[in-house]
Amino acid sequence: MKPPKDKYEIVSEMGKRRGYFWPSYEIYGGVGGFITYGPLGSALKRNLETKFRKFYLQPLAIVEIESPVIMPGTVLEASGHVENFKEPTVGCVKCQRKFRADHLLQEFGKMTDTQTEKLDLDAVMEEIQKLGIKCPDCGGDFNKAEQFMTMFTTTIGPYSDSIGYGRPEAAQGIFVEFKRIFESMRNRLPLGVAQIGQALRNEISPRQGPVRLREFTIIDIEFFLDPEDKKCLIINEVENETLRFLLAENKQKENPEITTMTIKEALTKGIIQEEWLAYFMAKAKQLLILLGVPEDKQRFIEKLDYERAHYSKQGFDQEVYLDRWGWTEVSGHNYRTDFDLARHMNASGVDLTAFKETEDGGKRFVPHVIEPSFGLDRLVYTVLEYAYNKQGKRNVLSLPRDLAPMHASVFPLVNKDGLMEKADEVYHMLADSGFVLNWDHSGSIGRRYARADEVGIPIGITVDYQTLEDNTVTLRDRTSWTQVRTKLDELPELLCNYFANKIDFNGLGTLIER
Amino acid sequence: MKPPKDKYEIVSEMGKRRGYFWPSYEIYGGVGGFITYGPLGSALKRNLETKFRKFYLQPLAIVEIESPVIMPGTVLEASGHVENFKEPTVGCVKCQRKFRADHLLQEFGKMTDTQTEKLDLDAVMEEIQKLGIKCPDCGGDFNKAEQFMTMFTTTIGPYSDSIGYGRPEAAQGIFVEFKRIFESMRNRLPLGVAQIGQALRNEISPRQGPVRLREFTIIDIEFFLDPEDKKCLIINEVENETLRFLLAENKQKENPEITTMTIKEALTKGIIQEEWLAYFMAKAKQLLILLGVPEDKQRFIEKLDYERAHYSKQGFDQEVYLDRWGWTEVSGHNYRTDFDLARHMNASGVDLTAFKETEDGGKRFVPHVIEPSFGLDRLVYTVLEYAYNKQGKRNVLSLPRDLAPMHASVFPLVNKDGLMEKADEVYHMLADSGFVLNWDHSGSIGRRYARADEVGIPIGITVDYQTLEDNTVTLRDRTSWTQVRTKLDELPELLCNYFANKIDFNGLGTLIER
Repeated sequence: MKPPKDKYEIVSEMGKRRGYFWPSYEIYGGVGGFITYGPLGSALKRNLETKFRKFYLQPLAIVEIESPVIMPGTVLEASGHVENFKEPTVGCVKCQRKFRADHLLQEFGKMTDTQTEKLDLDAVMEEIQKLGIKCPDCGGDFNKAEQFMTMFTTTIGPYSDSIGYGRPEAAQGIFVEFKRIFESMRNRLPLGVAQIGQALRNEISPRQGPVRLREFTIIDIEFFLDPEDKKCLIINEVENETLRFLLAENKQKENPEITTMTIKEALTKGIIQEEWLAYFMAKAKQLLILLGVPEDKQRFIEKLDYERAHYSKQGFDQEVYLDRWGWTEVSGHNYRTDFDLARHMNASGVDLTAFKETEDGGKRFVPHVIEPSFGLDRLVYTVLEYAYNKQGKRNVLSLPRDLAPMHASVFPLVNKDGLMEKADEVYHMLADSGFVLNWDHSGSIGRRYARADEVGIPIGITVDYQTLEDNTVTLRDRTSWTQVRTKLDELPELLCNYFANKIDFNGLGTLIER
Repeated sequence: MKPPKDKYEIVSEMGKRRGYFWPSYEIYGGVGGFITYGPLGSALKRNLETKFRKFYLQPLAIVEIESPVIMPGTVLEASGHVENFKEPTVGCVKCQRKFRADHLLQEFGKMTDTQTEKLDLDAVMEEIQKLGIKCPDCGGDFNKAEQFMTMFTTTIGPYSDSIGYGRPEAAQGIFVEFKRIFESMRNRLPLGVAQIGQALRNEISPRQGPVRLREFTIIDIEFFLDPEDKKCLIINEVENETLRFLLAENKQKENPEITTMTIKEALTKGIIQEEWLAYFMAKAKQLLILLGVPEDKQRFIEKLDYERAHYSKQGFDQEVYLDRWGWTEVSGHNYRTDFDLARHMNASGVDLTAFKETEDGGKRFVPHVIEPSFGLDRLVYTVLEYAYNKQGKRNVLSLPRDLAPMHASVFPLVNKDGLMEKADEVYHMLADSGFVLNWDHSGSIGRRYARADEVGIPIGITVDYQTLEDNTVTLRDRTSWTQVRTKLDELPELLCNYFANKIDFNGLGTLIER
């Protein structure tokens, strides 16, 4: 018997068929680690960006910048990436294919991230041999492990010595341009600077769809602080928020226990060392709730010393539970200290300090940085997986209404007696008011509802014979299948309030009893 | 005497100082061809994208996709880019620096694009020697010309034979994914598909700021049509729009004359061969008007046979006049026929045809493509240059209100007597309603107005003693400096209507006579 499909398989199949996302370059056999967002997927991704801005950036007046994806070697040497951005690989002696050694150990040796992270190259090879792991493609043996730098390398301009890299994170674009940004913001701290953009990591053999990509969209926020004045004045907004932690001390146990505590507690006990780190973690949890991930399907995992990136003093990964991959990182929260600015100041010789008045006149210092960083593609996929559900035989995508790529469908009940023309009129009236609409007049109304439910269109608007008489339409809720009747001339304003989360579906009209 | 600054110099200086844009990687001495958008610039760029969507994409229900920047070699071999995407270079025998030969001939030999385009490598070298052009850096001689492929090259994954390129246009991402897109849109034609994203061109020696970038944002729209049914049913919407043409037949004349005619005329006379090409050109002209470029500062230049890209059957470039660089391309409009889909169908062996019912049962065909393509960075720069003006001694940036990165400034008249607190209240009330605000309380009110005018904030809101009494504020218009008085509780809705272009400044309150 065929095993039942997992959610990834169902969501991917729907994604390909209906235009959410699919593996890139399929007509040429595909290239691992790249996905393309279709019409619905790219709209969902944009809506998610907009929601992120409203929820995470604007309330703190965090500004954005946009810097290039291509970076000169000098920048990534200074940042430590050229030295540190490497992963252990092994090659098959028979078919010559190369694999990421730590991933093989995780997949075939059931080792955790935490366990593989501390192995050096010799230890990696030893474990592979001890576990008898062979090439997944041809069954061949592996030869000795080596480090592979996972940045895309290129040359800038016509000279071969002018090395450039695809940036592995958007953060360096902010650090390297800090001086101009800081001055244009009139040298004030704290200063939050975000960048949403493409990042590139030349993964060795990515095989996990939207969860491990060679090209992805990252949201990096660098929150610059005076290291002598790191208090978060709005911590009270989130101090009672409860987080679920997998603490460093519990990570290496067989069945690691989850510790639940409030932000206030975590700060008091020193579990989270920095108030701003705690603030951003609390907001990250709230964001994931808004995206449809319940409390018990998310957690924060503390990074051990040797697991943290080279720039981090304390770090937590936010993980969500995904059907196929289990606990999966969607954001990282790190205290980067003055690591990056100090490195760039040293390497460039340019002053990147801030100034403050003190009793003795004044003082220059290198700002410290708290960094929340999100993988946008993983968030998009997470939203889809959590929105997916089955109602009877029907697949329904219960996307949060403000993320749905289309607001409503317009359905003429039948294709005659002037209903098409009336529906067309409704379509244009709403389109002119800025709504994104689906038009569907083929097949039974039931089939049309089903098609709209599957891609997550929140509202179905049916134009029927009564519409011609009294200018009212039926609205149907995607998730509850409740129906209300509404006057057409009130519809644009009502929908506007509905999508701004000001009213619920029942507020859209008069309930139709069934 | 120092020559007066040109607009590029003024706008760039302001851009650096106030956070619009600047050359990337300055602390490391800079790398030509890359710019970074600061807080104001990235917001302006996003607003411009939003406006583009509303004006150019949504009325035609053009959908968007998002495909990777990194493309495997196979795709760009099939598309003809590996073969054709080359530029002539010459190297200095003394300092070894390389330059783009056609740009040298244009800069030092006063040749036009049209003239250099038809020269082969030998002819290029001959012209350089005839004109006595020497290395602009060291005065050395040039050795022989060669072709340089202007795509960024990399390898994908750990195998050196797996060549990848940075995409030189977003269009190929659409063509190569056409099958899935078309199916997800239920196989209907015409179908408009857009992609807004990064493109990379490894220019040899870019020296023109935002006008010639190695990394830039492109807006490519591929409008797929049945080649036997190419009529544009909405051409009447634009048929009386007047365009200014520099026609192919006039291009090689000494003082090429401009031909002005309506869309209708251009189509009737066969100047523009395709209705949809004409439609998109008319909309491109209207867009530039909305962005602040007057009629006489824009034109369409017809491409000669040998000037057109390898995929184009007919093409026009839309140019705007810029103070430093003269007539500069901001968009290209090409009839790409079935060139790209046919090439990918051949190379991949995958069927990329559409199907239509005919009297004999049915017919498969390769859709044809009309392509409008915009350089977003050039549009951003153009908006800034045209918005810049001088009123007395003051620099004012008269950005169209829906593009301005910040909606309004909030100014407490003085920093005492409770005015700061009241202004803070106003700030938060408006921020909560979604407005992006500037807070400025330092220096005289005149200086604060000047700072806000320079970066283009449309409205200044001053909180004064009267505000404490009757809850009214003064609003000041950035461009006319007119002032009105308004009740605070009406302000959010009024501003909302103002930024939606529903009311003018005078509609925001009661005029204050001065």
